Amino acid sequence: MNSWGDKFRVTIWGESHGQQVGVSIDGVPAGIALQEDDFLHDLGRRKAGGAGTTTRTESDQPHIVSGVYEGQTTGAPLTIVFLNENTRSGDYRNLVIHPRPSHADWVAQKKWNGYNDPRGGGHFSGRLTLGMVAAAVVAKKILGEKAQFSTNIIEIGGEQDSAKFDQIIEQARMSQDSVGGVVECRTNDIEVGLGEPFFDSAESLIAHLLFSVPAVKGVEFGDGFSSARMLGSQNNDPIVDADGHTATNHAGGIVGGITNGNEIVVRAAIKPTASISREQQTFNFESGKVQSLIIKGRHDVCIALRAAVVVEAAVAIALADLKLRA
Amino acid sequence: MNSWGDKFRVTIWGESHGQQVGVSIDGVPAGIALQEDDFLHDLGRRKAGGAGTTTRTESDQPHIVSGVYEGQTTGAPLTIVFLNENTRSGDYRNLVIHPRPSHADWVAQKKWNGYNDPRGGGHFSGRLTLGMVAAAVVAKKILGEKAQFSTNIIEIGGEQDSAKFDQIIEQARMSQDSVGGVVECRTNDIEVGLGEPFFDSAESLIAHLLFSVPAVKGVEFGDGFSSARMLGSQNNDPIVDADGHTATNHAGGIVGGITNGNEIVVRAAIKPTASISREQQTFNFESGKVQSLIIKGRHDVCIALRAAVVVEAAVAIALADLKLRA
Amino acid sequence: MNSWGDKFRVTIWGESHGQQVGVSIDGVPAGIALQEDDFLHDLGRRKAGGAGTTTRTESDQPHIVSGVYEGQTTGAPLTIVFLNENTRSGDYRNLVIHPRPSHADWVAQKKWNGYNDPRGGGHFSGRLTLGMVAAAVVAKKILGEKAQFSTNIIEIGGEQDSAKFDQIIEQARMSQDSVGGVVECRTNDIEVGLGEPFFDSAESLIAHLLFSVPAVKGVEFGDGFSSARMLGSQNNDPIVDADGHTATNHAGGIVGGITNGNEIVVRAAIKPTASISREQQTFNFESGKVQSLIIKGRHDVCIALRAAVVVEAAVAIALADLKLRA
Amino acid sequence: MNSWGDKFRVTIWGESHGQQVGVSIDGVPAGIALQEDDFLHDLGRRKAGGAGTTTRTESDQPHIVSGVYEGQTTGAPLTIVFLNENTRSGDYRNLVIHPRPSHADWVAQKKWNGYNDPRGGGHFSGRLTLGMVAAAVVAKKILGEKAQFSTNIIEIGGEQDSAKFDQIIEQARMSQDSVGGVVECRTNDIEVGLGEPFFDSAESLIAHLLFSVPAVKGVEFGDGFSSARMLGSQNNDPIVDADGHTATNHAGGIVGGITNGNEIVVRAAIKPTASISREQQTFNFESGKVQSLIIKGRHDVCIALRAAVVVEAAVAIALADLKLRA
Repeated sequence: MNSWGDKFRVTIWGESHGQQVGVSIDGVPAGIALQEDDFLHDLGRRKAGGAGTTTRTESDQPHIVSGVYEGQTTGAPLTIVFLNENTRSGDYRNLVIHPRPSHADWVAQKKWNGYNDPRGGGHFSGRLTLGMVAAAVVAKKILGEKAQFSTNIIEIGGEQDSAKFDQIIEQARMSQDSVGGVVECRTNDIEVGLGEPFFDSAESLIAHLLFSVPAVKGVEFGDGFSSARMLGSQNNDPIVDADGHTATNHAGGIVGGITNGNEIVVRAAIKPTASISREQQTFNFESGKVQSLIIKGRHDVCIALRAAVVVEAAVAIALADLKLRA
Repeated sequence: MNSWGDKFRVTIWGESHGQQVGVSIDGVPAGIALQEDDFLHDLGRRKAGGAGTTTRTESDQPHIVSGVYEGQTTGAPLTIVFLNENTRSGDYRNLVIHPRPSHADWVAQKKWNGYNDPRGGGHFSGRLTLGMVAAAVVAKKILGEKAQFSTNIIEIGGEQDSAKFDQIIEQARMSQDSVGGVVECRTNDIEVGLGEPFFDSAESLIAHLLFSVPAVKGVEFGDGFSSARMLGSQNNDPIVDADGHTATNHAGGIVGGITNGNEIVVRAAIKPTASISREQQTFNFESGKVQSLIIKGRHDVCIALRAAVVVEAAVAIALADLKLRA
Repeated sequence: MNSWGDKFRVTIWGESHGQQVGVSIDGVPAGIALQEDDFLHDLGRRKAGGAGTTTRTESDQPHIVSGVYEGQTTGAPLTIVFLNENTRSGDYRNLVIHPRPSHADWVAQKKWNGYNDPRGGGHFSGRLTLGMVAAAVVAKKILGEKAQFSTNIIEIGGEQDSAKFDQIIEQARMSQDSVGGVVECRTNDIEVGLGEPFFDSAESLIAHLLFSVPAVKGVEFGDGFSSARMLGSQNNDPIVDADGHTATNHAGGIVGGITNGNEIVVRAAIKPTASISREQQTFNFESGKVQSLIIKGRHDVCIALRAAVVVEAAVAIALADLKLRA
Repeated sequence: MNSWGDKFRVTIWGESHGQQVGVSIDGVPAGIALQEDDFLHDLGRRKAGGAGTTTRTESDQPHIVSGVYEGQTTGAPLTIVFLNENTRSGDYRNLVIHPRPSHADWVAQKKWNGYNDPRGGGHFSGRLTLGMVAAAVVAKKILGEKAQFSTNIIEIGGEQDSAKFDQIIEQARMSQDSVGGVVECRTNDIEVGLGEPFFDSAESLIAHLLFSVPAVKGVEFGDGFSSARMLGSQNNDPIVDADGHTATNHAGGIVGGITNGNEIVVRAAIKPTASISREQQTFNFESGKVQSLIIKGRHDVCIALRAAVVVEAAVAIALADLKLRA
């Protein structure tokens, strides 16, 4: 489904080369000051343009078309649309005949009997995440100014020293390749008690949204996979004060599925962009044989760069939904 | 919420030391042969008893109380209950005064203003996963006999050589400690096309349920966090035949959020059991000071051992729901 | 689905002649005093026994099996079960061969390919409403003591003079027939602002639940169908004070889908019991011919009598869900 | 919430005097031929212009902005928007000071603390039903060509002779008043087995959507409230053939909450338009006194005329959702 959320419900639509992509958000409390400029900062973080990102650039101008009156949210559904401008549709029939490896080309055809819009990935395009980033701007207002998000790329191509990131990306670009990375999002000042035991655990909801973000292949909270390598005595977080602060935060701010008032720490593994310019192999469904394939066009060398704000958006949306439920 | 699923909806209830734990499943197709014995194998895998598991044992006898008539499912809600027998309630007021580190004791009190049932973790108890395992038995019947699950503990305490697992666990037990592990679940023969782009991606739904399982702190698909360290040319999976099989399976059987017909591969990081017998520190909410704490009682040294079948259950339930949606 | 509700979610299961019927409620706030005796009054109103009701009687003893600790709700799922005792299963194969008119016998067979439990109506039995009545007892506690429900049968067999009801029922019983009625439920002290414009209007949610009650064929709010016969000047309700009270209440306490603080007035049309003892015609699916049919067994002459408390339950559950959303 | 539906999920947004109203539909099967012209017939039925309708007219031109590629639905969310053109916003502060009787003015202010958009009813405007009518055009394609809808106004101002409708409406117009009516929608060729017992009964879902339509105050299926006046022997529908056809159709095509293959018959009571030109009384929240009120502007004398196609839309959407679930 293209809707997510219980009390802060986000609905997205659009295709990469269609008329527009959009988002409608239900459950936005009335009386939040909101104007189109408020979205520009986070939308800018998602934008292409820097080293390692595609040369397809869009203005990404948000248009609020419902839910705001005299500069404030009304309580009715808030809808924001983005027009698609810089599209080069060309011939997408190739994607049908010899689908790109590790793209959704082939599964989309199978799932929708060939009726899917193949242009630029269609509805699978990362362009749809514009709506998530926009929704998160509102989500952050709901969480309050004190809830600061700190989101960083902590690893690219296996390297954790950020000083070397540019070089790794440049190297991948030179070899017509792409490279993956890890994004870490930290959020402070989240109240105690968000989330439910079992099915609506804070981790479940955050991970649900994170795995909605294209290219995310792993999610961990706190020490995550490292916790699995520890002893209990190393991993347990002793409570040290009446507010529930803990001496360590191996749990990443969530125990038993419930926020405990400590910093929320979550990491997402972003795979390398599937579109690479160098020669690959794939199956040709017409000839019935494996063939070589060169993907032309404009690609992100390291999609993790642009994904960081989307990861943050997923966390913010999930937390806002949890907060409004509480 | 205690319900999950769209077309295969699982509702669970109960407390560790209450009268029963149970599960009601809506959306079970009519005409599936089902009897109480069908549950015993998987319930047995979840059971305590072996080295590294608690000495609290329960018969875990399933009682089908609705939804089956003359040995077959009816299409009406299927309900299975388990009576709690081997409970030792004792004095749980201690948990309120000085909560156990990395347990839900304190957040539960905060969330429910002290009205939560604290006995044995109450509703947060791993005992609730009985219902998930039972539901998964039905889920597997929906997925069909060909869909084989292979679930293994691939790492304990950081060690990947399974021959050394017993020793690591024994060492933790001797030092009154606990130890974490990683569970891997592989599923073959899942049809192409399950899942939706974005919010209901196959990865989103599976991860949602996995993070509902107590002690899970990380989830990754295919190469997961390792993908983030690769180049695109290393991570891409070339399609090699008309069924969409790929030469490699770095994606773990899911691209663009949609199953691609290759083996589903998912791993869950299981933290070490929070309950350990050795002395720990925690906050005493009466005295207002940090104090030392010794947790008495029966604990699992390595909960990953018993969690394996629960991880498998989460994957099976999510896949069954996806299959019934398709 | 067997679950309903957003913040007060009710899940029901069971069959007329199965082991039990039950209800699990998610979203019950912690700290509500609750014991099994609290259910007896409303369950008693639903019970058979009086003139016009079936002679199959059940003890209808509620068993709280989860969600209550030391006499108060915990915030975890609240589950209540009722054992089935007074069942006479006999031979239900007849229902398959020549289904009863205006019963679910035939549609149930078609829907579930003959796997449905046919005994006593199986999962379609009015016995399932036990769970709704139980859930409503909790719903009323959430709505608060001031929210008084006044529910009456205002019409039986077209007669509005309640003094004649007994005679009409007796007449129907003597002619081995049944008779319908209209139930009116009034609720005061419901706060202003419950409900949403459009899809989650207060009327939508209340009507949704009312049409879940077997035998309900019509629902109207305020003047309902009579409003459709009025002029605007007759039907409009002038506001007369700062609390939004209106001089008249043609709207039944809901405008624009939102409660306006005036009395909620809703009526449900209850069709006559489909099971009647007198001879009827139906189709014999073995012989391929219409045949005459005599339904044996114990039936309610006027199910509206027992349905009144169920109608009230539906209203209370919907209002509690709306209140918890707000 | 502004979303409704399980498998055919409709999300609407907009305000009467905002930039646009829109609808996004999730779950539309791929491969349905669809173009903007397909919507014009039903949108035309909803349009103002005839006797008894407002003189505010809009072009109501639908714009498909996502989900269609080369003239066919893609399986991705289908989004249709309508621009608002003919708005006269004027001074709406009056609505805050002395709210119109039987309008949502006052409850909207209370619910959203005065932040609601008051212009032309804002989000409560009947203009939002454009999206429902558009969604129903798609719903009907899903139901198939054989599923014919026949929707008629069977009563206006209490009069059932349609030859007199014009006169009644003219009379109301002359007296600066409005008048209510009853709309009946009949649908044939709906398959057996749609709907679920209890909470997702066909009646529950259809009624839920019908009560989302502004001005609907009553809903009945088959004989509805008349059933409540009958004996069982009069109301029961004998099955007469192997397809489940019944000699009579008092049930309106639904028994036990499940469609039985007979014609679906449902009626909705439409209250008279709340906006009337003649003098009324209301409360002035500034002066604290009741005052007289004259509502200026353009109103529908008999909104039932334009509501007919919206009633049909609600039925079609609910049936399409039920069909896609089955």
